[in-house]
Amino acid sequence: MWFMRQAGRYLPEYRAVREKAGSFLDLCYNPDLASEVTIQPLRRYDLDAAILFADILVVPHAMGLPLKFAEGEGPILGTVRSMEDLERLKPVSGTFEVAQVCRTVGLTRAQLPSHQALIGFCGAPWTVASYMVAGGSSDRVMAKVAAYQRQPWFCALIERLVTESIDYLSAQAEAGAQVVQIFDSWAGDLVGTELEDFVMRPLAAIVAGVKARHPDLPVIVFARGVGIAQRRAAVIPGANAVGVETEFELADLPKDVVVQGNLDPVALLAGKDVVAAEVQRICTSVDRQRHVFNLGHGIRLGTDPEVVGSVVDAVRRHDG
Amino acid sequence: MWFMRQAGRYLPEYRAVREKAGSFLDLCYNPDLASEVTIQPLRRYDLDAAILFADILVVPHAMGLPLKFAEGEGPILGTVRSMEDLERLKPVSGTFEVAQVCRTVGLTRAQLPSHQALIGFCGAPWTVASYMVAGGSSDRVMAKVAAYQRQPWFCALIERLVTESIDYLSAQAEAGAQVVQIFDSWAGDLVGTELEDFVMRPLAAIVAGVKARHPDLPVIVFARGVGIAQRRAAVIPGANAVGVETEFELADLPKDVVVQGNLDPVALLAGKDVVAAEVQRICTSVDRQRHVFNLGHGIRLGTDPEVVGSVVDAVRRHDG
Repeated sequence: MWFMRQAGRYLPEYRAVREKAGSFLDLCYNPDLASEVTIQPLRRYDLDAAILFADILVVPHAMGLPLKFAEGEGPILGTVRSMEDLERLKPVSGTFEVAQVCRTVGLTRAQLPSHQALIGFCGAPWTVASYMVAGGSSDRVMAKVAAYQRQPWFCALIERLVTESIDYLSAQAEAGAQVVQIFDSWAGDLVGTELEDFVMRPLAAIVAGVKARHPDLPVIVFARGVGIAQRRAAVIPGANAVGVETEFELADLPKDVVVQGNLDPVALLAGKDVVAAEVQRICTSVDRQRHVFNLGHGIRLGTDPEVVGSVVDAVRRHDG
Repeated sequence: MWFMRQAGRYLPEYRAVREKAGSFLDLCYNPDLASEVTIQPLRRYDLDAAILFADILVVPHAMGLPLKFAEGEGPILGTVRSMEDLERLKPVSGTFEVAQVCRTVGLTRAQLPSHQALIGFCGAPWTVASYMVAGGSSDRVMAKVAAYQRQPWFCALIERLVTESIDYLSAQAEAGAQVVQIFDSWAGDLVGTELEDFVMRPLAAIVAGVKARHPDLPVIVFARGVGIAQRRAAVIPGANAVGVETEFELADLPKDVVVQGNLDPVALLAGKDVVAAEVQRICTSVDRQRHVFNLGHGIRLGTDPEVVGSVVDAVRRHDG
């Protein structure tokens, strides 16, 4: 059991560190503080894993695109919209950004007790590319048009992100990450051939590339919002578990797949009674031996930390 | 074949009428101009149906909630967040708003050739309620929390919207609408029991209520974004067709269901070649005898009217 965005603004101790750190990116690249916020939720809650505090845009940033996070708004990122833009990007290996994230991984692993796993992560090519094409906004229309048109620069960008993601996740594994998750937050934008070519195939290529270097590293794929195509994500060769969004029932996946999810983050805003009922519903719909309890999306700002604790308690109660 | 939002800002002739009309709501409640924009796309394109030009917020507006559309922004609507708020609402029957919409229906039907159908519509209770709870914004978090908590006022609001929607659709049928569609644009927010209680059951109740008065009126239900639960929507008793979002493959529905959809509106931004390939893919994936060609969501602002024409041509070419 762990929760997406378990480290974050809903926790007062996170907000205190964040104030000390300066900007969001300053925090991401400060190994002492980033490892501190990575560990914070495990001090409060009986979780089985910590998830590295970082951002999916570390990869394009390390590739050389300017990046900043305006307070209260989304990211502002340099754009890639041509082969020339793409050719200017550099490999992530050995960059300051990746080195700092790997230091955070090492520091965190050293502080965690052995029974708690450290999960590393990256954004998936489709999701990361959509931000690179849009210039930071989460509007995926331009990226989707490029995908439909099979723009050569767009196809090459996806390939390039596959390579860089393999290097980035491998570096995290070498620094001490014991599991990695690939977040394709916007996978649900695509369908049919585009879903296959720009989501499923790149995810499979990253899994294969990471496994070639780290055969025993568990890899979780999270192709959010693809609905029934979760069945396709669940059979990506080598993937050890499939993350599932709230809007898809875990029971609709084959019984031999390890599933992760999928409590609705909004249910946590509805209070402890709702949460207890939802945990019960989810836990009885799956084989708990093949289930990583999680949310279907990240914890929302404004969530009561006590309600988060009540989720943990409800899951432990179910299993006990 | 028809297209969601086929009348709208992507058409220069629509923009000309809109300028003359004043505000968006002025246009909705002006039968002469609203019927004109309803018919405009059928002058350009070889479509089989016109869809009434109106808004899903006509019902809460007719119930007495203040409503305005700020230019370039979303709607601003009075809120319903308690039993007292709910009790202040009046029935829609006989209101100015509903009378004007019905006049538009009558005027449009009188001008359309007999081989072209006029489709009326309403928003579904979950979607309309989410705007009423939020005060016009499309953020459904507050409505979702109320749904999870089974707030008595929220459950009563859903019931009330079922009743009003039956009256509203019946009035449209009596004025000349030959088909009606119920739009549950935000149905994909819910899952499990909440999806059943606040989407599927209200949709079924509206279908039953409308059919009791107009047994031969075809009813299309569009529970957008529910994914695999489209199979549940497809068996709502009495519903004649199920509208399907782009992100769900039509072929994943039972073969005996009439399906409507689901070309991606973004594909239209990618040009005629992409559109031709997508039309081919969709039309060969279904039995065209049981398929209403449509988009998976509304036509986007900025769509080239020529590309819309190329969709129509591609569908006719496929069938011919």
